[in-house]
Amino acid sequence: MKKGFFKLKTPKDVYKIIETFSNLGNEIVNIKDSLNRMCFKDIYSDVDLPNFNRSTVDGYAIKAKDSFGASESTPVFFKIIGEIKMGEKADYTLNDGEAIRISTGGMLPQGSDAIVMLEYTNELDKNTLEARKSVSPLENVIQVGDDIKKGQLVIKKGFKVRPQDIGMLAAIGKKFISVYKRPKVAIISTGDELSEIDKEIPLGKIRDVNSYTLSSLIKEVGAESICFGIVKDKFLDLKKKCEEALNKADIILISGGSSVGTMDITLDVINSFPYSEILVHGISVSPGKPTILAKVGNKAVWGLPGHVVSAMIVFLIFIKSMIKKIGGYYKYKYISEKSTFATLTKNIAKAQGREDYTRVKLFKGEDGIIYAEPILGKSGLISSMVKADGIIRIDMNSEGIEAGEKVEVILF
Amino acid sequence: MKKGFFKLKTPKDVYKIIETFSNLGNEIVNIKDSLNRMCFKDIYSDVDLPNFNRSTVDGYAIKAKDSFGASESTPVFFKIIGEIKMGEKADYTLNDGEAIRISTGGMLPQGSDAIVMLEYTNELDKNTLEARKSVSPLENVIQVGDDIKKGQLVIKKGFKVRPQDIGMLAAIGKKFISVYKRPKVAIISTGDELSEIDKEIPLGKIRDVNSYTLSSLIKEVGAESICFGIVKDKFLDLKKKCEEALNKADIILISGGSSVGTMDITLDVINSFPYSEILVHGISVSPGKPTILAKVGNKAVWGLPGHVVSAMIVFLIFIKSMIKKIGGYYKYKYISEKSTFATLTKNIAKAQGREDYTRVKLFKGEDGIIYAEPILGKSGLISSMVKADGIIRIDMNSEGIEAGEKVEVILF
Repeated sequence: MKKGFFKLKTPKDVYKIIETFSNLGNEIVNIKDSLNRMCFKDIYSDVDLPNFNRSTVDGYAIKAKDSFGASESTPVFFKIIGEIKMGEKADYTLNDGEAIRISTGGMLPQGSDAIVMLEYTNELDKNTLEARKSVSPLENVIQVGDDIKKGQLVIKKGFKVRPQDIGMLAAIGKKFISVYKRPKVAIISTGDELSEIDKEIPLGKIRDVNSYTLSSLIKEVGAESICFGIVKDKFLDLKKKCEEALNKADIILISGGSSVGTMDITLDVINSFPYSEILVHGISVSPGKPTILAKVGNKAVWGLPGHVVSAMIVFLIFIKSMIKKIGGYYKYKYISEKSTFATLTKNIAKAQGREDYTRVKLFKGEDGIIYAEPILGKSGLISSMVKADGIIRIDMNSEGIEAGEKVEVILF
Repeated sequence: MKKGFFKLKTPKDVYKIIETFSNLGNEIVNIKDSLNRMCFKDIYSDVDLPNFNRSTVDGYAIKAKDSFGASESTPVFFKIIGEIKMGEKADYTLNDGEAIRISTGGMLPQGSDAIVMLEYTNELDKNTLEARKSVSPLENVIQVGDDIKKGQLVIKKGFKVRPQDIGMLAAIGKKFISVYKRPKVAIISTGDELSEIDKEIPLGKIRDVNSYTLSSLIKEVGAESICFGIVKDKFLDLKKKCEEALNKADIILISGGSSVGTMDITLDVINSFPYSEILVHGISVSPGKPTILAKVGNKAVWGLPGHVVSAMIVFLIFIKSMIKKIGGYYKYKYISEKSTFATLTKNIAKAQGREDYTRVKLFKGEDGIIYAEPILGKSGLISSMVKADGIIRIDMNSEGIEAGEKVEVILF
């Protein structure tokens, strides 16, 4: 049992270090499989959408000028020269005073520039149309390129692909898209006290929770998780697992590897690899102070506190950001895309020179206001994370937050 | 070309109808695969967590009372009788004046009730400890059941399983969990104008966008999507596809099936099945008015507008809610779990007696305020959804919203 000597980095320092890790390059996927992937490069349209003038209503294609002055009391008459079926090329050319039947989505014939809606018409006989409304040029028409023009930007590099983006890609005929490769993240749980999660375990042991929470968090960010199971606190065992993990993953999380008992082993293992460098050895953050970040070749190795809550919070505030960074997401700097504001119910005191993350539960008071109730539990208690709806960040230089203050809650 | 005669339902009516659809029952999954699934029943803990008193620090287990009065200037001395290794059963029984070395997470020996931290101690020799700080009973100790007690509720029925919930299940030794079955949702695209999304398509045709947007939206809600491709506007073709879809899915979406051209066919097909009933035929909502909802046996069949934006919005405001309902999610009534408030930049006028959904783009003004800019495009334009960050709901009885008003934006 040795004391750890930390030269603490600030969270800001750590984010700067995370920025130095580069992305993993790209792969081509079918747009069907591209939901929530990160677009690898700016995508431009090769086509005009639509590529023909379309009707937005059921009615009659006409020359708008022929309808001018038409009203309920003074209808205008047209000669019906045919019908354009949905999905067919409009082979007609319209002359003055002529009209053609057309459905929503139908292609406007040459010469027509507007549609008079069905509701304002009557077919007096097969060839004669009565129109009771004047329409302006382009009324009820989507013109070539109205949706998107040839050469126009469709999706930006680094943006997350949403359902509507996939729809746009389909609409312009792009079946495949270049996206950033998804980071693979390995989890190694260290600790002589750890046991697989069976129903009964020997007294003194605890079940390996971090493998489960961390792999779920990894999946939630859209990365791939690979569990390497439990390793005893022994140099050779950990070294062997790390080697395997370095071969298969881009980021390696060693949970429990930064607790005082195993920290030295973790550091020794990291240092035993060629091209390895310890970048972070302790962060001025609570919980999560005893966190290690190292680079082995071009891969990141994190030593995480064994406490489940500390490990989760370090993941949420730092590792998530790194996964997004190397996964190409332009928004990697934000901890959460979901947050809400609430009024704090209790004072939270804190030491200066350290950034704190406090778990809170949200509730609506009888006054209709949303309150954030701090959950003050020991960092080893997973129940505190189960009870919580999110976390609040308390600034490095703050001495705490008072009850009644408005806080931003980063939602889970 | 016939006019559709709608007896419009209000959105409220539609939500009430959605409530009448029942869930799909349960299945048992490994907790590893349970992220974002809906818990099928209340889960209680069978065990105390932890099931032994644990140390939260590195130090020495003692009887707290023996340390009373200890300080930097007046240390107290203990006899060291051994060491408790991590993960081992504490086989010692502590007597007055005795201390045992213990690591974070270690099991407290019988007789001890507190830990004095390493930082405040010195080993004068192998058997003699000097402690320079007084500790209270239970200081630095997690007691049996502190995290969760035997019989206590862990996760509620109908709640979405989060990473920390999976962690809690792992911690109490539950490897499997009963979750609601995931709804299977079929998509059939109808329309003679539709083409598969190839690079080049015949003039007059458009690419089938709805299969792509809808299946992405389905995946995003956590359901399974099954695409049945494009069907011509013919009774027998649609009937055959519907039969297939009814065999394989719980919800069937017929996109384009409510446009005037194909509505009658869709209605005829639905009515041709035994135990079928049209529940909704038009909704007082914009976009999305010509929407059909029917029940065939215990399955739901939706006829959606062919316009991509209308189809997406009907999905977001109604179908998403149905998927959540039959998927067991207790929060099925909320359209979105993500929303934010913003100041509207332009007046939005609307007709009364209809609920409107307007697409908006968010931006931060130079004054630091978040603004919502309405995107006023024709409902056929997918680009309007690509530009938008979310939608705002305008109440049935409202005549519009004025620029400068604060609105809630339902985020994509």
